[in-house]
Amino acid sequence: MYYFNSWNDDYKQPFGAIKVGQIMKVNFKTDKAGVQVKFVIRRDFGTRYEFEMQRLEEGHFSIAVPFDVGKGLYFYYFEIEEPSDWGTIRHFYGCSGLGGEGVLYSNENDVKPYQLTVFDKEDPAPAWYRDAVFYQIFPDRFYNGNEEGKISHPKPNSFIYGSTSDTPFYVKEENGDIARWDFFGGNIRGIIKKIPYLKELGVNAIYLNPIFSGTSNHRYDTNDYLEIDTMLGDEAEFKELIGLLHDEGMHLILDGVFSHVGKNSRYFNISGSYGDDEGAAKNPDSPYFSWFKFNNYPFDYKSWWGIKDLPEIDKDNESFREFIYGEKESVLTKWNQLGIDGWRLDVADELPDTFIRGIRKNLNRYSDMVLIGEVWEDASNKISYGARRDYILGDSLQGCMNYPFRDLIISFLNGQRTTADTAHHLMSLRENYPKDIFYNNLNNLGTHDTERILTMVGEENNALAISMMFSLPGVPCIYYGDEAALTGGKDPENRKYFPWNDIPADTYSAYQTWAKKRLNEKSLRHGEFSSFFTDKLLGILRYTESEIFIYIMNPTLDEVTVNPDEITFLQEFDFLSALTESLTGLVISRKSFTDLKMKR
Amino acid sequence: MYYFNSWNDDYKQPFGAIKVGQIMKVNFKTDKAGVQVKFVIRRDFGTRYEFEMQRLEEGHFSIAVPFDVGKGLYFYYFEIEEPSDWGTIRHFYGCSGLGGEGVLYSNENDVKPYQLTVFDKEDPAPAWYRDAVFYQIFPDRFYNGNEEGKISHPKPNSFIYGSTSDTPFYVKEENGDIARWDFFGGNIRGIIKKIPYLKELGVNAIYLNPIFSGTSNHRYDTNDYLEIDTMLGDEAEFKELIGLLHDEGMHLILDGVFSHVGKNSRYFNISGSYGDDEGAAKNPDSPYFSWFKFNNYPFDYKSWWGIKDLPEIDKDNESFREFIYGEKESVLTKWNQLGIDGWRLDVADELPDTFIRGIRKNLNRYSDMVLIGEVWEDASNKISYGARRDYILGDSLQGCMNYPFRDLIISFLNGQRTTADTAHHLMSLRENYPKDIFYNNLNNLGTHDTERILTMVGEENNALAISMMFSLPGVPCIYYGDEAALTGGKDPENRKYFPWNDIPADTYSAYQTWAKKRLNEKSLRHGEFSSFFTDKLLGILRYTESEIFIYIMNPTLDEVTVNPDEITFLQEFDFLSALTESLTGLVISRKSFTDLKMKR
Repeated sequence: MYYFNSWNDDYKQPFGAIKVGQIMKVNFKTDKAGVQVKFVIRRDFGTRYEFEMQRLEEGHFSIAVPFDVGKGLYFYYFEIEEPSDWGTIRHFYGCSGLGGEGVLYSNENDVKPYQLTVFDKEDPAPAWYRDAVFYQIFPDRFYNGNEEGKISHPKPNSFIYGSTSDTPFYVKEENGDIARWDFFGGNIRGIIKKIPYLKELGVNAIYLNPIFSGTSNHRYDTNDYLEIDTMLGDEAEFKELIGLLHDEGMHLILDGVFSHVGKNSRYFNISGSYGDDEGAAKNPDSPYFSWFKFNNYPFDYKSWWGIKDLPEIDKDNESFREFIYGEKESVLTKWNQLGIDGWRLDVADELPDTFIRGIRKNLNRYSDMVLIGEVWEDASNKISYGARRDYILGDSLQGCMNYPFRDLIISFLNGQRTTADTAHHLMSLRENYPKDIFYNNLNNLGTHDTERILTMVGEENNALAISMMFSLPGVPCIYYGDEAALTGGKDPENRKYFPWNDIPADTYSAYQTWAKKRLNEKSLRHGEFSSFFTDKLLGILRYTESEIFIYIMNPTLDEVTVNPDEITFLQEFDFLSALTESLTGLVISRKSFTDLKMKR
Repeated sequence: MYYFNSWNDDYKQPFGAIKVGQIMKVNFKTDKAGVQVKFVIRRDFGTRYEFEMQRLEEGHFSIAVPFDVGKGLYFYYFEIEEPSDWGTIRHFYGCSGLGGEGVLYSNENDVKPYQLTVFDKEDPAPAWYRDAVFYQIFPDRFYNGNEEGKISHPKPNSFIYGSTSDTPFYVKEENGDIARWDFFGGNIRGIIKKIPYLKELGVNAIYLNPIFSGTSNHRYDTNDYLEIDTMLGDEAEFKELIGLLHDEGMHLILDGVFSHVGKNSRYFNISGSYGDDEGAAKNPDSPYFSWFKFNNYPFDYKSWWGIKDLPEIDKDNESFREFIYGEKESVLTKWNQLGIDGWRLDVADELPDTFIRGIRKNLNRYSDMVLIGEVWEDASNKISYGARRDYILGDSLQGCMNYPFRDLIISFLNGQRTTADTAHHLMSLRENYPKDIFYNNLNNLGTHDTERILTMVGEENNALAISMMFSLPGVPCIYYGDEAALTGGKDPENRKYFPWNDIPADTYSAYQTWAKKRLNEKSLRHGEFSSFFTDKLLGILRYTESEIFIYIMNPTLDEVTVNPDEITFLQEFDFLSALTESLTGLVISRKSFTDLKMKR
C-alpha cells in the first residue's frame, strides 16, 4: 500500500551514507489516491525538519534534498496524509530497524527512522591498506626468536611459563588484583624470524599489539611511549623488522594506547621505579602532573574503568596532546619517522573527537599512513559518554575494528540468527557506514579481547566463518594462531602461545586459500557488496563493472539444491536474472560454501 | 626443707637419660626429722611403682633403682611422710616443670613428675656426622648451574620466575588450590658449581630437600622414588655431585618422604600422566592399589592432612615397606648404593615406629650412614596419634631436627623469655634426650618450613642467634641463604632464590667464623653441656676432660660487667671457682657475646 526501500535505487539515491553537499533523491510510492506525503528529517539529538514531497504522478512522490548543512547523523521518515470517508488519516512510514523496506506507524513517537550518515570527506585509505590481508600479533605469545628460547630482560616479579603449551593463567592476589604478570617470551626477533611463515600464509600486513615499555604482558599499561619494551627487543630490532617487512612489500601498524598509562610509568610513577621525584604521583611539580586527575593526592586518582593499574589521562590536556601528536619530537612523529605504516587506536570511542583529529593531522604529513580505531559496535551511530561520535565522518578514523561482523558471523553460524536476518544486518551496516570506512574496517573473527573463533563456532563451522570474513567487504585480519586452530575463551585463554609444532593443515590451508583468493580477486578487495538469501542459504555478492563474485553458503546439516524461486535479493541489479540462472540447481553440501565468478 | 635436683650429681646419677639395665642412684635430703621418703615411678601411661628410700643418715635418703624392665619414658617423684603434732603429713616432691630443683605438692594428682628417658642403645652416629657443619639446600632456590640460566625440562603448566630476585608467590585458584607451580630453576649442576662456595663458607655436609621426580617446586609430592627430577638433573649428575663432595671430605643426606606421594605419581596417577592403566587411581589391579585408602574410588581417597595433592600411604602395607627399605632393589638401597651418606625422614612422627626401624635396619648395612627425623617438639616425649613414640630410644632415629632450640633462641632474643628460663629449658632438653640423640640433633635457626631467622630476630640479634646455634650441642645446619641475610616469613617467603650478587659480608662472616670455630674446637663438637646465667647474661659451657669452652652473651641494650655474685650455675663442677674468677669483671657490650677457653 505504501512503499519505500532505502536499498533500492528507485527509491533512494545515492545508496547509503552521503557526503556533505550531496543531494539525496527519494521516491515514495502508494496505490492510494489523494494522498499527501511529507519527508521528515531529524538532526541527531536535534531539530525536526519537514519537506513537502512532490507528486510526480498518482501514487508517486519525490523529493531531492541537498545535505549541505553539515556532517553528522540524520534520521528520516515519511509523514502521510490519507483521505478517508471519516476525516484524514495520518500515517508515518519509517524504518523496520535495519533499513531497506519500511513499515507503517500510526504514532510519530513510535517511529524508527532511517539513519542517514552524512560525512565530510571521502577517505579511501592507502592502496596498500585496502589490498591487505592483516595478521594480528600479540607479541608475547607469537614467537621467541632468541637462541634456545632465552628470555630477554625478564621483568622483576614476573613469571615465565614453564612450557609454551601451557594455558595462560592470571596470577592474582586474594583480592583479585594481578599479583604477577605472566610471560611466554615472544619478541620482535621472533616476528622477524617468522616473516617467511607469514608470507607463506599469504598475509602482507601486521597489526602489532602494544610494544612500548610496559609492566604487563599485554603492555596496554604503557610505561614509556618512546621505548620498545626490553623484553621484546630494542629500537634497532624494531627498525630491522620494519625494513624487512617493507622489503617484502608488507606493512605494519602499531597499537596506540593513549587513553591511560601504567601506574608505574615514567609519567605517573607511583612506586618510584623511575626515581623518587619523577612522575605525577611522586612529584606535584612534575611536568606530567596536569595529565592526571587526583581526588586525593597521590593514591586516589582517576583510573580507566576503575582499574588502578591504569591511571587515566586527561586527553584535553594540551601538553599531553603535544606530547602525543605534536609535529616534532612527539610519540607519533618518532615512530612514524621510523617507518611504520599506521596506527590502531585503542578505545577510540573513549578519546575526544578533537584528540583523534589531532592524531590524524599528524599522520596526514606522511603518505600511505592508516588510522583505524577500536570500536565494538556499529561505529556509525555509537553514542559514548552521552555524545554521538564523529570519528568516521572525515579527518578522523579511516576504519574500525569490525566487531559487528564478527558478532553476526558467530550468531549466524550458531543458528541464533536466520539467513534473512543476517543478510539484512549486513546490508544495514553497509548502509550506515560511509563507504570508504566500510571498506577500511578491519574484519576480524577474533582478537586478543574476544574468544577464539574456533571455540565460538566449533570445528564444523570454522571454515565457514573464515570464508565469510574473506568474502565480506573490509580488510581481513587473522588473529595469530587462528590459522593453527588455537582454541580458548576470553582473556587469558585467547592468548595462548602459538603452537609452532602443531598447525593443523586443514585450518591453515583454509586461511591460506582465502588469503590468496583475496589477493587474486579484485572483486573481493574492491567490489561492491550486496546480499541475498533463501530459507537455508546465505549469499554474498561482490561485483565490479566487469565481473561478479558470488559466494553462497549452506550452514545447515543437509545438502541443499538452489531453487531460483526461493531466492530473495536485497537489491535490484541488471545481472540478477543471469545470476539466478547460473545458481539454479547448484548443489551445496552440508556446512559448506561455493564461490563462483560471472562476467557482467 | 626438702631438696632434690635432677641436674646435680649429688642427687641423681647418671645425669639425664639412662640406658636399659643401668642403675639410677637418687639422693633426697631434708632438714626435717623423723621423715620417711618413698621413691615413686610411673611407667608411661602405666603402672605406679613405689620404692622405700633408704635413710643413710638423718635427713638423707637414698635409693638405687636398676632400670632393666625396658626402654621407654618413666616418670618419678617422691612421696614424703612427715610427722607432725597432729598426725602425719603427706607431701610429694616433684618436678617444677623443667627438671633440676623440684617443688612440694600436697596432692598426688597435681604432681609434675620428673621425666626419665630410658633408651635401648647408645647411638653415637658416624664420626663425620658429629663433626659436621650442615647446609640445607632447597634445590630449586639455590643455584641454576646451566649455561646462561637455561631451565632444564620445565614442567607443563608451571611458571618460571622472571627474575631471581623475585619474591616467591603461590599461584592459586580462587578456591585456594595451587594452580601452577613456580620455579626458579636451581639444579644439581648448580650445587656442583657451588661446592667451592660451600667449602669457603666452612660447611662440610649437605642436607638436600627432595630431589626425586615431583610436580611441585618442593618435590614433597614424589612422583617416582627411583628418578631424579629432570628439572634438577639426572642420575649421572647426582652421582657426580656425590663424588665431588666425597673428594672434598664432604657428605650428603637426602630427604626421605615416605608418608605420602604425589597424586600424579606413578603409584597413584590420578590424571593418567603415567598412562591410562598405571597406578592405584587408574587401575584397581595396580600393584600399588593396596598402598592407598579409598573411601570412594577413585576420587575420594585418604590424603595427608586432607591435601588432595598428597595421597597418603598405608605405611603398614608390606609391599610398600619392601619397596622402600627391602634389602634389594628398594628405594633406600638404590640411593644408598649410589653413595649418599644418610637420610632425613620427613614427618618422622607420623611414621609407624616399626616402619622407621625397618628403614634403620636397611641403613645399618652401610657404614657411616646417618638417619635423622623431622620432629617439631621435644622428641623425647612427643605423643602422636595417641601413642608415645619410641624413635629416639634406639635402633630408630639417630637425631631430630632441633626445632625446640630454634624456638628457645628466638623467644629469648626477642625478650619473651628470661635468661633463667632459657638456661633451664636448655638443660631440660639435654636431660630428656638420650645423650647421643641430643648431640646428633640437627640444630637449625630456620628451615624451608619456618620463617627466616633474620626476620624472626632482627638485624641486631642475628649474630647472637648464630652464635647460640653453634655453641649448643648438636650438629649445626645452616639454611641456605641465611648466611646471605635472606629475610622472609613462612613459606613461600622463606624460599627465595639465593642472592648470589648480594651477600652481606658481616652475616656471611658470622657463619664462616663459627663454622671454622666449630671445626677447630673439639669442645664445641663433643664437649659436655651446661648452662649458667645472671639476670642479664646467658652462659653456655662446653667442657671436655682437658678444657672448657665458655660462651657468655649479653642480649640487652646496655653494656654489662660480669659480677660473680650474680651468676647462677645450673650444675656443680670442680672448675666453677676458677671459671667464676676468669669471668669476673669481664665487660660484654650490648647485644654481643664473648667466648673464651680455659684449661681444666
